[in-house]
Amino acid sequence: MNILVLHGPNLNLLGAREPDVYGGATLEDINEMLAQEAAARGVVLRTFQSNSEGDLVSKIHEEAGWADALIINPAAYTHTSVALRDALTAVHVPAIEVHLSNIYRREAFRHHSYIAPVAIGQIAGFGIESYRLALIAATRIGAS
Amino acid sequence: MNILVLHGPNLNLLGAREPDVYGGATLEDINEMLAQEAAARGVVLRTFQSNSEGDLVSKIHEEAGWADALIINPAAYTHTSVALRDALTAVHVPAIEVHLSNIYRREAFRHHSYIAPVAIGQIAGFGIESYRLALIAATRIGAS
Amino acid sequence: MNILVLHGPNLNLLGAREPDVYGGATLEDINEMLAQEAAARGVVLRTFQSNSEGDLVSKIHEEAGWADALIINPAAYTHTSVALRDALTAVHVPAIEVHLSNIYRREAFRHHSYIAPVAIGQIAGFGIESYRLALIAATRIGAS
Amino acid sequence: MNILVLHGPNLNLLGAREPDVYGGATLEDINEMLAQEAAARGVVLRTFQSNSEGDLVSKIHEEAGWADALIINPAAYTHTSVALRDALTAVHVPAIEVHLSNIYRREAFRHHSYIAPVAIGQIAGFGIESYRLALIAATRIGAS
Amino acid sequence: MNILVLHGPNLNLLGAREPDVYGGATLEDINEMLAQEAAARGVVLRTFQSNSEGDLVSKIHEEAGWADALIINPAAYTHTSVALRDALTAVHVPAIEVHLSNIYRREAFRHHSYIAPVAIGQIAGFGIESYRLALIAATRIGAS
Amino acid sequence: MNILVLHGPNLNLLGAREPDVYGGATLEDINEMLAQEAAARGVVLRTFQSNSEGDLVSKIHEEAGWADALIINPAAYTHTSVALRDALTAVHVPAIEVHLSNIYRREAFRHHSYIAPVAIGQIAGFGIESYRLALIAATRIGAS
Amino acid sequence: MNILVLHGPNLNLLGAREPDVYGGATLEDINEMLAQEAAARGVVLRTFQSNSEGDLVSKIHEEAGWADALIINPAAYTHTSVALRDALTAVHVPAIEVHLSNIYRREAFRHHSYIAPVAIGQIAGFGIESYRLALIAATRIGAS
Amino acid sequence: MNILVLHGPNLNLLGAREPDVYGGATLEDINEMLAQEAAARGVVLRTFQSNSEGDLVSKIHEEAGWADALIINPAAYTHTSVALRDALTAVHVPAIEVHLSNIYRREAFRHHSYIAPVAIGQIAGFGIESYRLALIAATRIGAS
Amino acid sequence: MNILVLHGPNLNLLGAREPDVYGGATLEDINEMLAQEAAARGVVLRTFQSNSEGDLVSKIHEEAGWADALIINPAAYTHTSVALRDALTAVHVPAIEVHLSNIYRREAFRHHSYIAPVAIGQIAGFGIESYRLALIAATRIGAS
Amino acid sequence: MNILVLHGPNLNLLGAREPDVYGGATLEDINEMLAQEAAARGVVLRTFQSNSEGDLVSKIHEEAGWADALIINPAAYTHTSVALRDALTAVHVPAIEVHLSNIYRREAFRHHSYIAPVAIGQIAGFGIESYRLALIAATRIGAS
Amino acid sequence: MNILVLHGPNLNLLGAREPDVYGGATLEDINEMLAQEAAARGVVLRTFQSNSEGDLVSKIHEEAGWADALIINPAAYTHTSVALRDALTAVHVPAIEVHLSNIYRREAFRHHSYIAPVAIGQIAGFGIESYRLALIAATRIGAS
Amino acid sequence: MNILVLHGPNLNLLGAREPDVYGGATLEDINEMLAQEAAARGVVLRTFQSNSEGDLVSKIHEEAGWADALIINPAAYTHTSVALRDALTAVHVPAIEVHLSNIYRREAFRHHSYIAPVAIGQIAGFGIESYRLALIAATRIGAS
Repeated sequence: MNILVLHGPNLNLLGAREPDVYGGATLEDINEMLAQEAAARGVVLRTFQSNSEGDLVSKIHEEAGWADALIINPAAYTHTSVALRDALTAVHVPAIEVHLSNIYRREAFRHHSYIAPVAIGQIAGFGIESYRLALIAATRIGAS
Repeated sequence: MNILVLHGPNLNLLGAREPDVYGGATLEDINEMLAQEAAARGVVLRTFQSNSEGDLVSKIHEEAGWADALIINPAAYTHTSVALRDALTAVHVPAIEVHLSNIYRREAFRHHSYIAPVAIGQIAGFGIESYRLALIAATRIGAS
Repeated sequence: MNILVLHGPNLNLLGAREPDVYGGATLEDINEMLAQEAAARGVVLRTFQSNSEGDLVSKIHEEAGWADALIINPAAYTHTSVALRDALTAVHVPAIEVHLSNIYRREAFRHHSYIAPVAIGQIAGFGIESYRLALIAATRIGAS
Repeated sequence: MNILVLHGPNLNLLGAREPDVYGGATLEDINEMLAQEAAARGVVLRTFQSNSEGDLVSKIHEEAGWADALIINPAAYTHTSVALRDALTAVHVPAIEVHLSNIYRREAFRHHSYIAPVAIGQIAGFGIESYRLALIAATRIGAS
Repeated sequence: MNILVLHGPNLNLLGAREPDVYGGATLEDINEMLAQEAAARGVVLRTFQSNSEGDLVSKIHEEAGWADALIINPAAYTHTSVALRDALTAVHVPAIEVHLSNIYRREAFRHHSYIAPVAIGQIAGFGIESYRLALIAATRIGAS
Repeated sequence: MNILVLHGPNLNLLGAREPDVYGGATLEDINEMLAQEAAARGVVLRTFQSNSEGDLVSKIHEEAGWADALIINPAAYTHTSVALRDALTAVHVPAIEVHLSNIYRREAFRHHSYIAPVAIGQIAGFGIESYRLALIAATRIGAS
Repeated sequence: MNILVLHGPNLNLLGAREPDVYGGATLEDINEMLAQEAAARGVVLRTFQSNSEGDLVSKIHEEAGWADALIINPAAYTHTSVALRDALTAVHVPAIEVHLSNIYRREAFRHHSYIAPVAIGQIAGFGIESYRLALIAATRIGAS
Repeated sequence: MNILVLHGPNLNLLGAREPDVYGGATLEDINEMLAQEAAARGVVLRTFQSNSEGDLVSKIHEEAGWADALIINPAAYTHTSVALRDALTAVHVPAIEVHLSNIYRREAFRHHSYIAPVAIGQIAGFGIESYRLALIAATRIGAS
Repeated sequence: MNILVLHGPNLNLLGAREPDVYGGATLEDINEMLAQEAAARGVVLRTFQSNSEGDLVSKIHEEAGWADALIINPAAYTHTSVALRDALTAVHVPAIEVHLSNIYRREAFRHHSYIAPVAIGQIAGFGIESYRLALIAATRIGAS
Repeated sequence: MNILVLHGPNLNLLGAREPDVYGGATLEDINEMLAQEAAARGVVLRTFQSNSEGDLVSKIHEEAGWADALIINPAAYTHTSVALRDALTAVHVPAIEVHLSNIYRREAFRHHSYIAPVAIGQIAGFGIESYRLALIAATRIGAS
Repeated sequence: MNILVLHGPNLNLLGAREPDVYGGATLEDINEMLAQEAAARGVVLRTFQSNSEGDLVSKIHEEAGWADALIINPAAYTHTSVALRDALTAVHVPAIEVHLSNIYRREAFRHHSYIAPVAIGQIAGFGIESYRLALIAATRIGAS
Repeated sequence: MNILVLHGPNLNLLGAREPDVYGGATLEDINEMLAQEAAARGVVLRTFQSNSEGDLVSKIHEEAGWADALIINPAAYTHTSVALRDALTAVHVPAIEVHLSNIYRREAFRHHSYIAPVAIGQIAGFGIESYRLALIAATRIGAS
């Protein structure tokens, strides 16, 4: 099973960026953790981070033939990007939306997601565990 | 570790109720699955279903001293119950909100949750897997 | 043909309660009238009143196997109960929503019904006649 | 007892028009059914259909002296016509609003009625039976 | 003079529950204080707490013949319960709405009360004193 | 100076229609009063009433070459007719909007006028005097 | 007959202030015109201008015993002053609201008037003529 | 191929009416241009203009059997007519909505179309060319 | 203990002003009653009424050093004055908001208070008793 | 005449992407069709597709000196990009907005276009024909 | 060059008032700083503070002939005063709006300014520096 | 002191782009002016312009270690970019938002800034001077 993990804008700063909101783990820590979890499950993983909406859209296109599932933390683009939504709809690959923080505790504009209605489901608020849960969920989708 | 699992209104009908939306598993199937997962992790589980807002509130009060974490699928009360929200806030037990269906794909009134802002996090859209993921998440909270 | 008639909160006070809005008939008068109408049509009737949202939900579950149709005056829960809506959707029994008063002449929050979109239809404003018309409508549904 | 039945715009197409929404009966079928029901109750009936808001208003004026009650399916004008509302208010003849379809299951703009607050009551969602129920209701008003 | 004091959901947890918001007094402390104040004024007091919307509605019905006035802290149901509002309207007993906290300093959804428009008045923000002031106000109503 | 006076829907019922809102004068009384006022000022008057939005639009077109000013009581069409607004914009004849009643004391939907932004001005609330004032205003426009 | 004419904030600048919106007449010109019109009708006139909301409120109080009618151009306070509205309601003197400009052609916040619902009527858009028409209207009220 | 071209209210004034918004061509010019375009394509054309909402609805009904496609410039009724929308839905003839002006540059109420969701598509802003493009589009629909 | 009582605009008219809404007591009656209550409690009282927003602001500033608590009936300024809100925030003197009438039974714009979120609490709907309750509450604050 | 055709995000997937919404043609098919149409009209065409908002903005800047007209299908950026709107405004090249699908039949957020108010006009709903019509429209603009 | 500096309500309390929001400088400190900056630039300065909306309006009128530019910190009146807005528009003196605090970080009602659309520009969030920057900006306006 | 100046989308067109809105200066002129001002103050300046949201985000990341302050004109991204907001929050470098035009005089969607609540302050409406004032403000921040 092949899984593409997409990290949205500013997630490259994790660890340094507002640790009270996002936790102290770096993006490398997350990718490392995911790699171990994937290896333990026989899943092949590719990860990609970008601050560019267009690059995230293009990456989804490029990996659509390879990936059996997507795990995406759209970060700020959760709330503003119809283009990402359309990309996910276009490629017919099941996607799981994850958030480190509980977006429903934060500013009102973070309560709306353009991505959620086209994703399989959403996992939010568990810090780095949100990604691990998404990986487990993705393998279950692949198994069913 | 002690975990209380709360099932909100109409979830007693699972399996029979709109299987295209909620899947074919019954509530007993879910509780059975959770019991096995809990046993495998050394977690003690109690489950409770009610169609009554007040009974769910009271159950949270009663088990607050026993439970280390709550897993709650508030179902319809997600969108209408300030009383459940206040109960969760009052007892200081970390809670995880789960939904079988992806509530963001459904009617607009289901996009708002009174519970999410007072929960640790939210897991929605993975059918019976939503509960399993929540159990895993709860044990991680307990571990940290 | 079996019909379950559900009366929502505060309807037990009918007759005493705001007769200028709801008329002078008591709930017993209404049930009596319905019993006569049902008998004349060979319909078996069960009636139930509760002030509890959860009990109304549970009653719908319990009688779902028996009832061929539901007549429901959700009263205050018309405007606040997603749980009742979900119960009606879950049991696949055709339901008719009735109101004694013309809810569209009253406070703005009474103009919205969570129930109407999942009912067959709505009858409002005819006092005790609203119930009689609903019974006639229900037998027509049963006949077709 | 004299009853005026008003059919709003596009109802002349019934039968041909979206039968999944409005049923297969033609306007002639409805008028025929109503004529039989009226005859059986000793009620004198006049029916009128128009696609013109102004003609419906004028018809209400013209028949105000003759009619003891109005049954009106305002169709599209339900949602857009203050003129019809004002006509009903002006003539002091009790009016019953009917709809073939359950307007609360349809587009949001169909959930609001300018007519309902000035009518005795509203009956919606029972197809051709909506009219029959309205006729029964009207005779009850006349009887009381 | 007979006064019924109603405590809404989660108020049974007072003292333990968010003392920075609601103060450190328990519900027993409040009832004790009210009992003393009532005794000093020759007022007969009954108190009732429930987490159930339906039970609160039913209690209002039951005590309507006995009570000369109601003091109600609807807690979470302030913002969600039309049923409580209708119960208060139905029984024709003057009611006073109280809140321990200043609800206008809290989340926006707590700024709206379904109860206030059918109560005599509202007292909010004085902690346990809110109840005492309400008792004084109730005796003044009874005196006039 | 030539002035066209347009009366909108239901104004033909004046006198009979809700005299507490619109006063006891009939449309004939108003036209008679206006005729006298016009004669005294050397103004030539034409009056027209219709319940049809389209006929009012067409009449504006027809008289655009003749009229130096328009006095229009759009009645219900005030709040719903973009077509009347566009007609007034199209013909380049100064128009004065009048209302018998004070529309700002009535239902919220009557507070918005599609006509006012394209009229010279608005006079509302003075009963039959609203028309007289509009005639005086129109002659002032003609004089300047 | 005694009439008080109140001019709201910034009207002392008339003539100099945005003549394309408000015309070239000064406040003195308006008062002079009104004085002549009043004299011709045997009406006693007092005029008052203030930029202070409180002073306008107090003036209404002071002249309430003397005035048979009020003509008020609340200017900016039209849209923001509940105090002026309450003053007009309190004194039981019929008031006419006037505006030089057509407020419905201007910014959206100028379309709402706190004053209109408590005035007899509103005259807007006729420049200095708005005042003259209001004086005529006021004398008609006095005459009836 | 048969095409019905419908022109809504006030379009009979084209050329004279606000040429800066709608251009200098008259309705006759447009019909003439369309006739030539149609002839060149072997299309049979009927055109109809009305200021009456009801007449436009009736015309759609009448020509529904004859027309293979509709081109409709609903003008003001774009924004206010549910009746026209329902007529288009009822007749199952593909319709193309056209506007001379770019309605998205104008008042906010012109940005919403009741017609667009039931039309094949919308062409707006190209003046008389909007009609020509619609005719080309209609023939393409007919061809496919 | 020193308490400043502030009365907002139009309260100088109490007794004469809408007695069905505000009661028959004059402002002098209220101040007299408060003086007696204060004397009985050893509280020193100053009272101030103004129709001017600015004067009320300035009075708060002036008395901030003297007053231990404020009782303020902001009347119309409740709903429109950010300046009063800021004044209360600036001076760090605990304030209690009172209203004679139940503002939640009145026009929608009276349901919002700029003052409540910066006050200790709010007492509304008890007529002259609202002030007495506020005085009691203020002394309790002082005592704690 | 020089025309720049801009294709927004995800349009590179056309043919594969949701063919029921967007049709079966690929972007190459569209560009090919446009090339033939352009050649037949003596128009020079450049086409550009990007998933990046910034690249689309920059391309508009780069080609502003060359292009006589723009045809732009902004796709998802229609609803979210002020930057594209500003780019079109900045370069003073007439632009035509096209959409393959009828955006007014889809989710509510697709009904608003940031681009339409700064474009010449909009063509939506005709599939690949939308582009052809836009090319024809562009040449008409160029011709006038 | 002559510059009038206007300070709105409660700014006389600066230093004492919420220093964490507004800083520790007093109004005298600000005026002193501005005086020095003005002297260094050859600018003549007048400063004025008032808690009264009307007095601020009148001051603008009085100094309109003298002042070449206005610097105004409208404080609370920023969000509620149309009268100040109209005064600024009336006098044709360029105005600069300043705020000590960043109003966009505060309550939602502080995000809207009635003044900003009629000012040259707005400077907010720099504490006492906001005034200095405004003075510099004003001299630049005067210089250009 | 090190300052990074960021120019958002379309600002590379300054001078050519809508000079009536943005002034006649080019981006080079602005950077030149800033360079001189910086040099005179001993400030080291870096400037960066991009039409890409992602590149602006990345640049903020890259320069976060070097820059003591940011001056950012987010242009169109002011209103649509949560990603830029998050970038500014993440890097803990004080930022100043500038706008050439007075955004509060323009379209309603330009009145909201995602950036302002995370910036130190905002300066808008002074053309090229906005940048100069921001530089002065930044050096003051650096000095304090």
